[in-house]
Amino acid sequence: MVIIGGGFGGLYAARALSRADASITVLDRTNHHLFQPLLYQVATAALAPTDITSPIRSLLSGQANTAVFLENVDRVDLARRVVVTEHDSREVPYDYLILATGTNHSYFGHEEWGQLAPGLKSIADAREIRRRFLLAFENAEKSNDEQARDEWLTFVIVGGGPTGVELAGMIPEVTHNAMRRDFRRIDTRRTRVILLEGGPRVLPSFPDDLSAKAARDLTKLGVQVRANARVTNITQNAVFLGDERIPTRSVFWAAGNAASPLARTLGVPLDAVGRVLVQPDLSVPGHPEVFVVGDLAVVLQANGALVPGVAPAAMQEGRSAARNILARIKGQPARPFKYLDKGNLATIGRHKAVADFGRFHVTGYIAWWFWLFVHILYLAGFRNRLSVLIEWAYAYFTYGRGARLIAQDESGVQDPTQR
Amino acid sequence: MVIIGGGFGGLYAARALSRADASITVLDRTNHHLFQPLLYQVATAALAPTDITSPIRSLLSGQANTAVFLENVDRVDLARRVVVTEHDSREVPYDYLILATGTNHSYFGHEEWGQLAPGLKSIADAREIRRRFLLAFENAEKSNDEQARDEWLTFVIVGGGPTGVELAGMIPEVTHNAMRRDFRRIDTRRTRVILLEGGPRVLPSFPDDLSAKAARDLTKLGVQVRANARVTNITQNAVFLGDERIPTRSVFWAAGNAASPLARTLGVPLDAVGRVLVQPDLSVPGHPEVFVVGDLAVVLQANGALVPGVAPAAMQEGRSAARNILARIKGQPARPFKYLDKGNLATIGRHKAVADFGRFHVTGYIAWWFWLFVHILYLAGFRNRLSVLIEWAYAYFTYGRGARLIAQDESGVQDPTQR
Repeated sequence: MVIIGGGFGGLYAARALSRADASITVLDRTNHHLFQPLLYQVATAALAPTDITSPIRSLLSGQANTAVFLENVDRVDLARRVVVTEHDSREVPYDYLILATGTNHSYFGHEEWGQLAPGLKSIADAREIRRRFLLAFENAEKSNDEQARDEWLTFVIVGGGPTGVELAGMIPEVTHNAMRRDFRRIDTRRTRVILLEGGPRVLPSFPDDLSAKAARDLTKLGVQVRANARVTNITQNAVFLGDERIPTRSVFWAAGNAASPLARTLGVPLDAVGRVLVQPDLSVPGHPEVFVVGDLAVVLQANGALVPGVAPAAMQEGRSAARNILARIKGQPARPFKYLDKGNLATIGRHKAVADFGRFHVTGYIAWWFWLFVHILYLAGFRNRLSVLIEWAYAYFTYGRGARLIAQDESGVQDPTQR
Repeated sequence: MVIIGGGFGGLYAARALSRADASITVLDRTNHHLFQPLLYQVATAALAPTDITSPIRSLLSGQANTAVFLENVDRVDLARRVVVTEHDSREVPYDYLILATGTNHSYFGHEEWGQLAPGLKSIADAREIRRRFLLAFENAEKSNDEQARDEWLTFVIVGGGPTGVELAGMIPEVTHNAMRRDFRRIDTRRTRVILLEGGPRVLPSFPDDLSAKAARDLTKLGVQVRANARVTNITQNAVFLGDERIPTRSVFWAAGNAASPLARTLGVPLDAVGRVLVQPDLSVPGHPEVFVVGDLAVVLQANGALVPGVAPAAMQEGRSAARNILARIKGQPARPFKYLDKGNLATIGRHKAVADFGRFHVTGYIAWWFWLFVHILYLAGFRNRLSVLIEWAYAYFTYGRGARLIAQDESGVQDPTQR
């Protein structure tokens, strides 16, 4: 059987099949599993890329029935039951297939904004944001033009979901503390952070009171939170909200959802952003041998609500799909997926977080420590867990930032940091 | 006064001027100081790039008289006493100048080999080698062609100096241990490493007996050591030594020396590879206000030997140039530089090293532990030191490799790892 994607969904599916009497092939276009919930910490130079990645093949090296290949998949041929690779159009046959290739951010039809406002889904994205973030202060320090300096010291984040909120909350922490003493001509405490949310409130997937609390916490940190703010244009040195022009040289994108293009090749019903509308057992309509898990799947709960696109849901779906395959092999019926909501967490800078456990809403210190505990617990691979813990402990006590490396230019933009 | 370059020479010069009653400007084209002696460990995925880098401005944030700018310098105008930047041709005037921009590897006139055989001088270089190194095993695992698989599992390293020796010694350690269990179709213990040295022996800067010991140690690790082996051509899947063809898909370059092109803009006498022939006090002939330190300077010792191009020499020269500037400001004469040879170290895999302390030659375990101690000691910045120590302790006890991240393609070559 074949699993496409080594994220939370694919990895947990593979692990649930570790003792299956079957030959399992895992395909991913990167060599690493990425702990996406901490990606914003790489983007703000708090953690190194290797802290939140582990080679997929190492994570699965213990199970002899599983082979891992670095492979870009071009399409799935449901009729012929083969997966076709992009590079050499090789066909990989399957009896069972789990598709777990996730989603990317979306520029709502303005793909030209991609170059100006990088998103945050992969390690490459995080490195690009980190590069622009650090470079902005270097350029501000050099600049003799006051307006340009202000533009370099203004960061606009588009999208008020967890990623946008966490990114926005992190920037003041870094600029007010760690960076302050490093510059001679600028005061990094003058850095402005503007968070733009298109809808009426930040963290729309959280209850109202936690959204409001998050907005207050962000405001206390100095972040300008703007709801109902829809971006209409982005240029080299400004973001436009209709007629309003916000001068800035750094825009980071944390909005929108676009399903992995592999879903389109299935030829089955998709939702508006291209995700697959799966059956209750996570299989594709008409193809009981094909499952879709994680962010790429639209899964309806018994109460009519959609399963949220979060890591715990992807893990549960991966495990559930694996169990359904094992059941089918034994001639037993597949079972509908049941989402166990373990709560919803978002952190806002240092010492602040919001946690939604259904009836209980927790905020502030306690939520933050809980957030820390959960993320350390789930971080894949012992080494990274230890390494991240040390980085965090160091940053916590010194307000220092560990990973302030401006990497080689990865976007083709002229870059003076290149050696 | 202006210091160009934030490597060992420039950094130690800046630090020696921390209490000078002067305004000091440090220019570097990257934002980080790089601990170059450990670069080969990044290239082989043992350490992360951030483990061996620190922002130059953080390292110098304690001295209020020093400003750091991220800046590519285009040329030095000795007559007008200005440094001209590349990006916007800005002129930075100086009263005293320290030039510490080092050297790069050289392809001996075959610049077209650069694309096929990356060198190892910067973090970007190390990431590129790491990418190719890890990708080779991914491609071998996928390949159905036995010859291609053998070519992917053959690594050729050109240059038998410390970098080449250390790189060559590291590969068997990784492939024989950490990687072995991760692959299903290839046996990573079959990896071949071939070290090509153009001269008669590896580690030519060491005494004969230590060169011989290093060659024996490498051979024991399974490295094929070939002296008097001059590369005449490199292609996508082979290295040529005259008529002999060595099939390989991975060539790493650790040979040759080419001085930073800034030296040429001085208009003063240079040696064959473009380094500056400085006065005994490290100043440029005819320009007592300009000093050159580190790898870019050719410095003659009293005994007629050249000061070697190693980190301790660069540190000593940086400090000496700084002291001479302070003397000149006070109207005192500059003093000639005296090199204090603290010994010469190279490590060969796990538990093996060679150390030259003049009369004493140390090898094996003791030399290796000494190597470890010295490198931890000198690693700039407390955080990195701790982080590296933990990575090493982890790798030491588990034979694991910490940083096996295939980063986004940085060379423009088609790369299936790109997400």
